[in-house]
Amino acid sequence: MYRLHNNMSSGNAYKVRLMLTQLGIPFELVEYDIDKAETRTREFLAKNPNGRIPLLELSPGRFLAESNAILCYLAEDTHFMPADRLQRAQVLQWLFFEQYNHEPNVATVRYWITHKIEMTEFRQVALPVKRQDGIAALGVMEHHLTGRDWFAGTAYSIADIALYAYTHVAPEGGFDLAPFPAIRAWMDRVAAEPNHVPITDATVGAVR
Amino acid sequence: MYRLHNNMSSGNAYKVRLMLTQLGIPFELVEYDIDKAETRTREFLAKNPNGRIPLLELSPGRFLAESNAILCYLAEDTHFMPADRLQRAQVLQWLFFEQYNHEPNVATVRYWITHKIEMTEFRQVALPVKRQDGIAALGVMEHHLTGRDWFAGTAYSIADIALYAYTHVAPEGGFDLAPFPAIRAWMDRVAAEPNHVPITDATVGAVR
Repeated sequence: MYRLHNNMSSGNAYKVRLMLTQLGIPFELVEYDIDKAETRTREFLAKNPNGRIPLLELSPGRFLAESNAILCYLAEDTHFMPADRLQRAQVLQWLFFEQYNHEPNVATVRYWITHKIEMTEFRQVALPVKRQDGIAALGVMEHHLTGRDWFAGTAYSIADIALYAYTHVAPEGGFDLAPFPAIRAWMDRVAAEPNHVPITDATVGAVR
Repeated sequence: MYRLHNNMSSGNAYKVRLMLTQLGIPFELVEYDIDKAETRTREFLAKNPNGRIPLLELSPGRFLAESNAILCYLAEDTHFMPADRLQRAQVLQWLFFEQYNHEPNVATVRYWITHKIEMTEFRQVALPVKRQDGIAALGVMEHHLTGRDWFAGTAYSIADIALYAYTHVAPEGGFDLAPFPAIRAWMDRVAAEPNHVPITDATVGAVR
């Protein structure tokens, strides 16, 4: 059985929990307290030298890191990835956008605030820059979704899962989604997909 | 013919120039001065709402953004992408690592220095943080390459192209590669691949 090295508050880990649940694949969760640097121990670094969750253990000792790479692995030959070559590349385009323009801003600000991370000089100066860049990323999403139901192809895909993960909790980081009606309508569509589970659902996985 | 919306100093654009050259695919270059915000004009934003190069125009009006998504698109069914499912996911793992842990640090510091970008308060405070995080990313690469020739699978792949792009010019950003012998040996292997071209080679593309 898959074992997901996890943190319940992480949107990156939520992507994998949601995807596995929607695929009906059972999995075990191993929880890490990232505030206590439990992913930086010698034992964990032997599993992922980059010291980060989520980490999917495919079988004992075989690991795959990076949330969006895990989504791609799981999505192969499923309806979560379009069959068309260009549409598949467009899914990847949005996955890279998510990790470059969205997550380091929207997710990081949320993390600093909700985990009450010490506001060092760097974080104090970076906060307004990240907020501005996060709003810009939301603007790119809003522009794309205006007149479209989904990010890539013609159906719900892992591009939607990846972008939903930190967008729907963006208000926890002080991002106001009121100016983004197309994003809000898209979030409703994502949440209405079969077998959707919220980020707070710790009962996913082995117990189903 | 493919048209690559390009900047010669960009490692992200170099990835695509190198890949197209190694595949023997002719292309046109359209050069943008990123210091003059030429990718933020109304005309360019109609091509890529995220306002960034590289942007590959597959046919007139059909665009693909994000350097690593472009690499994936071009690599399909070539020897630049492994056939094995897990190895393909490991290629993606390194592509996401590159965009999250490497590029925002190693590439951004190089850009600020080589383009003489104004050092705002944010950049002054962020510089040492990015330098530290860039060195950490190089450390993860060094660890992985110790005892391995390539990043994923058993051969040169787009994971190597993506990571080579900004690693081999990291010294321009003040990153010392002397402590990373496995990286230096790997860079030599990458540069010895057939049809390798340097980042400064502006003669690639249509003229071949």
